[in-house]
Amino acid sequence: MSAPPARSPRVGVWLIGARGSVATSVVAGCAALTAGLHPPTGLVTEGPAFAGSGLPALSSLVFGGHDTTDCPLPKRAEQLAAGGVLPPGLPTAVATELVAADREIRTGGPLPGDTRDADDLIAAFAGDLRDFVRRHSLARAVVVNVASTEPAATSRTALPPSSLYAAAALRAGCPYVNFTPSTGLHHPALAGLAASSGLPYAGRDGKTGQTLLRSALGPMFAQRALAVRAWSGTNLLGGGDGAALADPAAAAAKNAGKERVLADTLGTVPEGEVHIDEVPALGDWKTAWDHIAFDGFLGTRMVLQTIWQGCDSALAAPLVLDLARLTARAQETGRTGPLTALSFYFKDPVGTAPAALADQYAALLRFARDLGAAA
Amino acid sequence: MSAPPARSPRVGVWLIGARGSVATSVVAGCAALTAGLHPPTGLVTEGPAFAGSGLPALSSLVFGGHDTTDCPLPKRAEQLAAGGVLPPGLPTAVATELVAADREIRTGGPLPGDTRDADDLIAAFAGDLRDFVRRHSLARAVVVNVASTEPAATSRTALPPSSLYAAAALRAGCPYVNFTPSTGLHHPALAGLAASSGLPYAGRDGKTGQTLLRSALGPMFAQRALAVRAWSGTNLLGGGDGAALADPAAAAAKNAGKERVLADTLGTVPEGEVHIDEVPALGDWKTAWDHIAFDGFLGTRMVLQTIWQGCDSALAAPLVLDLARLTARAQETGRTGPLTALSFYFKDPVGTAPAALADQYAALLRFARDLGAAA
Amino acid sequence: MSAPPARSPRVGVWLIGARGSVATSVVAGCAALTAGLHPPTGLVTEGPAFAGSGLPALSSLVFGGHDTTDCPLPKRAEQLAAGGVLPPGLPTAVATELVAADREIRTGGPLPGDTRDADDLIAAFAGDLRDFVRRHSLARAVVVNVASTEPAATSRTALPPSSLYAAAALRAGCPYVNFTPSTGLHHPALAGLAASSGLPYAGRDGKTGQTLLRSALGPMFAQRALAVRAWSGTNLLGGGDGAALADPAAAAAKNAGKERVLADTLGTVPEGEVHIDEVPALGDWKTAWDHIAFDGFLGTRMVLQTIWQGCDSALAAPLVLDLARLTARAQETGRTGPLTALSFYFKDPVGTAPAALADQYAALLRFARDLGAAA
Amino acid sequence: MSAPPARSPRVGVWLIGARGSVATSVVAGCAALTAGLHPPTGLVTEGPAFAGSGLPALSSLVFGGHDTTDCPLPKRAEQLAAGGVLPPGLPTAVATELVAADREIRTGGPLPGDTRDADDLIAAFAGDLRDFVRRHSLARAVVVNVASTEPAATSRTALPPSSLYAAAALRAGCPYVNFTPSTGLHHPALAGLAASSGLPYAGRDGKTGQTLLRSALGPMFAQRALAVRAWSGTNLLGGGDGAALADPAAAAAKNAGKERVLADTLGTVPEGEVHIDEVPALGDWKTAWDHIAFDGFLGTRMVLQTIWQGCDSALAAPLVLDLARLTARAQETGRTGPLTALSFYFKDPVGTAPAALADQYAALLRFARDLGAAA
Repeated sequence: MSAPPARSPRVGVWLIGARGSVATSVVAGCAALTAGLHPPTGLVTEGPAFAGSGLPALSSLVFGGHDTTDCPLPKRAEQLAAGGVLPPGLPTAVATELVAADREIRTGGPLPGDTRDADDLIAAFAGDLRDFVRRHSLARAVVVNVASTEPAATSRTALPPSSLYAAAALRAGCPYVNFTPSTGLHHPALAGLAASSGLPYAGRDGKTGQTLLRSALGPMFAQRALAVRAWSGTNLLGGGDGAALADPAAAAAKNAGKERVLADTLGTVPEGEVHIDEVPALGDWKTAWDHIAFDGFLGTRMVLQTIWQGCDSALAAPLVLDLARLTARAQETGRTGPLTALSFYFKDPVGTAPAALADQYAALLRFARDLGAAA
Repeated sequence: MSAPPARSPRVGVWLIGARGSVATSVVAGCAALTAGLHPPTGLVTEGPAFAGSGLPALSSLVFGGHDTTDCPLPKRAEQLAAGGVLPPGLPTAVATELVAADREIRTGGPLPGDTRDADDLIAAFAGDLRDFVRRHSLARAVVVNVASTEPAATSRTALPPSSLYAAAALRAGCPYVNFTPSTGLHHPALAGLAASSGLPYAGRDGKTGQTLLRSALGPMFAQRALAVRAWSGTNLLGGGDGAALADPAAAAAKNAGKERVLADTLGTVPEGEVHIDEVPALGDWKTAWDHIAFDGFLGTRMVLQTIWQGCDSALAAPLVLDLARLTARAQETGRTGPLTALSFYFKDPVGTAPAALADQYAALLRFARDLGAAA
Repeated sequence: MSAPPARSPRVGVWLIGARGSVATSVVAGCAALTAGLHPPTGLVTEGPAFAGSGLPALSSLVFGGHDTTDCPLPKRAEQLAAGGVLPPGLPTAVATELVAADREIRTGGPLPGDTRDADDLIAAFAGDLRDFVRRHSLARAVVVNVASTEPAATSRTALPPSSLYAAAALRAGCPYVNFTPSTGLHHPALAGLAASSGLPYAGRDGKTGQTLLRSALGPMFAQRALAVRAWSGTNLLGGGDGAALADPAAAAAKNAGKERVLADTLGTVPEGEVHIDEVPALGDWKTAWDHIAFDGFLGTRMVLQTIWQGCDSALAAPLVLDLARLTARAQETGRTGPLTALSFYFKDPVGTAPAALADQYAALLRFARDLGAAA
Repeated sequence: MSAPPARSPRVGVWLIGARGSVATSVVAGCAALTAGLHPPTGLVTEGPAFAGSGLPALSSLVFGGHDTTDCPLPKRAEQLAAGGVLPPGLPTAVATELVAADREIRTGGPLPGDTRDADDLIAAFAGDLRDFVRRHSLARAVVVNVASTEPAATSRTALPPSSLYAAAALRAGCPYVNFTPSTGLHHPALAGLAASSGLPYAGRDGKTGQTLLRSALGPMFAQRALAVRAWSGTNLLGGGDGAALADPAAAAAKNAGKERVLADTLGTVPEGEVHIDEVPALGDWKTAWDHIAFDGFLGTRMVLQTIWQGCDSALAAPLVLDLARLTARAQETGRTGPLTALSFYFKDPVGTAPAALADQYAALLRFARDLGAAA
């Protein structure tokens, strides 16, 4: 990868969960696109509507992050290729970039037996971030949480790990994006800090499958005045996220976001539950079945069913690149606080945002225009 | 049903195919809603956005129409109730209204052995319409084609039956709505007449199931930059429409509309075919299966499948009421020519209209506001 | 209904849960078939293989039972017709038979505030049964439990209601069939009584949907040496059974049967869970989605999904008639103890029986032949 | 691969279409199993029921065949690995065996511009076969047709290519198995030859997906006396077979087999069509959707839908190995004529065979026992 042109300062992308499937796909994929090996499928910000937005080029992104596991990125990429998540030859083709990113991964925490308290950990994480920015002479760095979903907090006071990382981002002066349903910046102890930080932030919980579909289909029923009686769903998840979400506490956080989408797009809360099952046999793939019982004219009962079979990492990775670019540019153009214009990407968006996918997309396009005008 | 209030002049709805499932559901359903027997599920124009649009009240609608079959509406309604399309007791509850509408049905054509030429038929149909308007002192009457799909025209010159009825509407000064894929006003011989008639018109081919879904889902893939590789579909239709569309010529007309929606929302034409099968065992119900193969990040292959199980008449009937009201009001407020703002309702909308359902809905809401402003 | 011919003595069918959907469908359906109003769809014992088995004629069956609710059968039948479970005109056509059966329903128990102990209740129920047999001069009466699933027993000693009825059947000398997953005769306190009673009995938990399908599909995978990795399922149930099974304790009993079928037909227990959701909007209908991830040659991953949309009462009712006839004939021909040959009908069959549906059917056909030979 | 033990003479497997996906999977897979790289998933004959049948060991099989294309097997295997049909490292791991088999592939025909007549071609093909047997000192060789489906014959007299190869097998004294719906030995001109050849033969049209499922599910409906009203299906096929079967003439042959299965298992021919669509985007994968509308008790309408997503080559390859072993052993034990006991494997089995999968499996197990007894 040759040096980026002079006018494009380098921008950091600091991934919490930097050795996971999503992070590995982000790093490998960005390198593959930069090298012209693949078209930018799934990357919204490569569309013509974003050409004049002043976003950082993919080739200007520098990756690093925190993780608590050891598996080197090149090996993780090979595992993903064996599972069909990455194309067979890609780990070899982008080995240089994987090694480079791997060198920028620092040990996260708290680790088992860790004696550091919350402030120690925040300080250590913020130090890692500042060091990353300084060593690479980055114009800025965006922190993106792509770690496994953590259990819902049992304590109102103690900060869960996701919130420690979020606090570290604020302390280091970095915009923060929460791609998971974990607490992150949503902790009451961080509300004041976030508001006074002068930093933009976005989240929560990337919308990559069943909820994406629901935010596209819910409005259809509302617009046609069809009465949704029950919306039931089952998710089968392999991989690490399945294990994390089989924990009812973690699932509860995720499901809250799913239900909010229905309530907001339909105007009512229909009957029906959502199940999240861990099915290791599915590997990195997930299947979501939705069953929507609705009434038509004179109460006639009808049914729509959808089956979504996707690869979570491949769905999430391009959105992470989108969000890093958009949030970096938001900071560059002086934006602060919750980026409600990014609701298109989230199940549980910060601020007050529309719930229908089409409205969220329109808001995103307006944001893209405004970012360019600000240049 | 008591007389409508003085300020609400009576408006005619003249149905081509007046003894069919859709027409019977329209008449029975309008009576049921007027009598407060059912909530207005499926009726878009009963929503708050249309409250100030000046639409004719449901209670002000008077029904009549043409058909070439004999089965009286009350009997047809009983058949539909036995098949689960109408609620069990409804035919009895609205027997008066069914009998009243039945009395206003005139014999259509051409009948087998008919010696009348095209102009004779147009004149006869227009006479029936004028007579209907005069006898009921209607402010206006809207002609809506809900007859079975006719085979694609084999001749460029001869007018198919749907076009004879459309020409009669023009001659009688009535707005025209084509809810089917049949030719209707789309015949080259009628283009000049339509343009010079000073009448509003709308169509073509009501969007009630698979295509409705496609116009909601296609934009999702485009907005997320996901590359749809193949979109395949199979429709299983019972009832009369299944029989009509098992004719490849009729199916061709219908499929053209379906493909246009994909091409317009996706920006490309994906692989994949659409099949329409007649399955009499399904009665008045239809099932549509769609299989969408798409590529995500780095070419990862994913699949969405949808299964839509609906009752065609129950999906179409409220839209017919919507269209009759909107088109009547469009005429009342002086609108002429193609009503592109009604693309929300059609597979193959007249004029230049957006293809994404959300954009079509936004256009409809603007139209609703404008109709009210015009009052 | 004229009197049956002299050679066909009358046989009683005593339904526990006699005012429920299944029982009402049994009574109305038997009358409809006897009157020639419908073909015997779903009734296995009306097939040619059973013609020589000496089964009691449908016209010889006399219905009665226990229930703790009040709704008269004719009214219950009207409700089922409104929900599409029974044909529209049927409740009227078989009103005489519904009234006759309704007259034979006795109050079950224990009722709220009931001061009778277990033995009192058993004695009362057995008395009702003996009285039924005597008043109608029945050759015999079969007790069939079709009541809502009761929660799994929390006590090892106290008899749950289903076991009280089962004990009453034994005391009154009546064969017993448990069509539900409730305890019934499976209580340890009844084991000795059942063994010494000299009565035949059958159960447990009628196989009407998802498990029926699993017992047909599981063997296919085993026979083809395809390795099932995960078999996941979700059931959406309306009606009373949904409410009962939303209770995790009741669901646990049901799920145990479902898993046993997979383990027995596949030879291994695959990954995957089964969910049972109550979705009142579905009325008397249920939908079961199954997702089967399996490996083919060289570990290639493949998937089969099934969606079963059925009406529980309509699936269960003919099987109840089958079981009553087969069990009555079993007693007539001197059979005692568990009727393992009826495993075709159950999720959790008594005795040692094959798990593959085809093997169960073969066993049933052999039983049918043997019953005839015994005549 | 070490030399097989003395008691296991080498057996040839001669594949028509030897460079296709199925053939490549057969050769690579047999090598992988022999080397212990994978468990024998999908291989029925590796089950305990076949342990005493005297089948040739997988390690004793020698592969060769005819094809009209040039792509070397190692390269073809790499393509299949890239498409996810073969495991990533397998082509390298079994390169020796792929090269060995590739050396035994002879040019088939007729080629474009071929001036040889039918008898010339048969003689040439038979010569290739005899040469293969002689050079490898094979005890015998089985010919298996796994070539793309050929269009239905337009002429009653001219032999299509599949029949030329079948005739060559007879002439060379080799048992013949037709895994495709092509004509093969079913040509009237070959009937006498087949009968007098003293050779065993099997076919036609391997049952690998939708029809396999139908032969498992059809009996369930029949056994439960449920009335199947309509059975509709759509197949989406990528790869070469999709292209071949998009030809209506080829599809007609395939569909005839599918319908026969329903007619034979249900006892009636339900409504419904079967579509076969070529969808290149699916690569080597296929998806089959089936929609089964059936009546239950008192005519209640219910629906079962199935979605089968499989890899055709991975489904077919182990069955080809099964058939080669079983047919070789059948010849060794003196069997001649149609091997009806192999109906388990075929849509359109030779001879008079049961249609229900369970009955076919029972027949196969009996055959396995008899083959052992004959030893």
